[in-house]
Amino acid sequence: MKIIRASIIGFGAVGQGVANVLLEKDDYLRSIGIDLRIVAIADSRTAVIDGKGLDLSAVIASKKEKKVVGTEKISGTEIIKTVDHELVIETTPTNIEDGGVGLANMLTAFEKGMDVVTSNKGPLALKYGELIEASKSSGSRFKFEATVGGAMPVINLSCDTLAGNSILSMEGIFNGTCNYILTRMMEEQAPYEQMLAEAQELGIAEADPSYDVEGIDTASKLVIVANVIFGMNASYKDVTVTGITRITPEALLLADNDGYAIKLIGEVNDNKINVAPKLVPLDNPLAAGGTLNVFSVQTDISGPITITGRGAGSIETASAILSDIISLYKE
Amino acid sequence: MKIIRASIIGFGAVGQGVANVLLEKDDYLRSIGIDLRIVAIADSRTAVIDGKGLDLSAVIASKKEKKVVGTEKISGTEIIKTVDHELVIETTPTNIEDGGVGLANMLTAFEKGMDVVTSNKGPLALKYGELIEASKSSGSRFKFEATVGGAMPVINLSCDTLAGNSILSMEGIFNGTCNYILTRMMEEQAPYEQMLAEAQELGIAEADPSYDVEGIDTASKLVIVANVIFGMNASYKDVTVTGITRITPEALLLADNDGYAIKLIGEVNDNKINVAPKLVPLDNPLAAGGTLNVFSVQTDISGPITITGRGAGSIETASAILSDIISLYKE
Repeated sequence: MKIIRASIIGFGAVGQGVANVLLEKDDYLRSIGIDLRIVAIADSRTAVIDGKGLDLSAVIASKKEKKVVGTEKISGTEIIKTVDHELVIETTPTNIEDGGVGLANMLTAFEKGMDVVTSNKGPLALKYGELIEASKSSGSRFKFEATVGGAMPVINLSCDTLAGNSILSMEGIFNGTCNYILTRMMEEQAPYEQMLAEAQELGIAEADPSYDVEGIDTASKLVIVANVIFGMNASYKDVTVTGITRITPEALLLADNDGYAIKLIGEVNDNKINVAPKLVPLDNPLAAGGTLNVFSVQTDISGPITITGRGAGSIETASAILSDIISLYKE
Repeated sequence: MKIIRASIIGFGAVGQGVANVLLEKDDYLRSIGIDLRIVAIADSRTAVIDGKGLDLSAVIASKKEKKVVGTEKISGTEIIKTVDHELVIETTPTNIEDGGVGLANMLTAFEKGMDVVTSNKGPLALKYGELIEASKSSGSRFKFEATVGGAMPVINLSCDTLAGNSILSMEGIFNGTCNYILTRMMEEQAPYEQMLAEAQELGIAEADPSYDVEGIDTASKLVIVANVIFGMNASYKDVTVTGITRITPEALLLADNDGYAIKLIGEVNDNKINVAPKLVPLDNPLAAGGTLNVFSVQTDISGPITITGRGAGSIETASAILSDIISLYKE
């Protein structure tokens, strides 16, 4: 049995999802030789630390009740610097302006030779090359399946499962909020604003929806996948982005009459990275409705391969973090 | 560089596809430390053997010209018994009655402790438990991604990529011929017989289509996936099978008017294995049209994950064989 000491830095929906999934899968992890002990958890204001391993049920309950995770006033970055452990699970919120605290956390972990598993898109969409370089030069390992497509194994599928294939191009729906709004606009023949309001009521869109509907979230994910699959060193500024705010129900109906749906598609082709609404044939896997995400690669010998699943949700994202942890530490 | 000596037993469309893919990917294989040498190839009548490694271009050209692969009168099974090599690539045609020569080839290889990679469904659909047992007891490794879903990484996705997830149920479209016929019947509002004839003209359906349209092919694949994913020891006779021959264009139109497609769905749920035409919502990934195959699993923590791709084709099937070879021998 291999003992792995880990921290969870960021204890919002995804961080708590990770704690819940680790609780649920503790027996499974032990069955494959992994004894994972969370020795520190930090949220944006407080932290809790126990070098022997925290009681995750108690921490989750306490966070629910008190809104903060602990009583210690120590930042995530300080925890990475000062608490002995091997793995940083970085689940702070995405900041696409400057990478935010997540970027500092990752670089600090790499300086110390620690492994990092993250769901935080911002640092990767801005500083991919620098992060990969930093992890390599210190012998750290860096996994980020959870940054793209929630539960969908987009990165591992492309890199491992399709081994032997060259990937020629890729496209997909990377944002469930936009997919939901467009699907409902067509179903109800209702305008954008009305279906955005519905999505906000249901918790599918945020109060400030611009990150999703302007295509920023899609572009951030796309740039990460583009870098991984095509060995590019692109950043968010290299993406041409058009959102969904100017799509009308009339346009959706016209498309439907001709056998097409309109979806917000992110695509990488000939080293160009582009996000824009596009027509897709109704019987194409990219026409999936609701909040689904879709990821499609064109390969040289396997033809097109498409994967569809839940792109968001704290448990789904946590499941991607779990699969990364397993791939790092299984015997 | 690891030298791997292999035979290709069965040199029809899939076997030749493997030879073509190995030629095309030789540099890639060497770049990951695999020097794969084909030392023997057998078709149903002849064989060609060269312990130093065959010239695959010459063998492919010769097979095209002369219809047989070589001049030696030695069976595949005898090659496995007598020619020194480590890996048998078993690509003889599927026989669902008794497993055919493929079953004997696999068991012979396992007796000698050789690894086997195969596209041949018959032996696995009939004698899964026996084959797994035989491979384990001799320390052989046994990979069969190519038996299910052509280019789609159905087995590796379920077993490796989704590590940490429990798979609760699965369903899918495992036969592109049926999907094509049903898709075209709806598009043209034409009867089954007419669209079957079209599929036969296009080479999508065989002269005797019963294997596909009666659901036998779907059932064979389904039983393999059921055994792998759920640890069952089912065989073909455990599957309840209904084909597509009694579907009418009127039924397809009625379904379409209500927002559904009719697809030949194979599903495993509560240890029951079932193949039958089913209604699926038009915006569900299972409604994919044309000759596409679809495979969907319901997981405990990732929700539903669906993969769509080309289920057939010699190069696509060969690509699955290539991915299995890579997973066996990469450093």
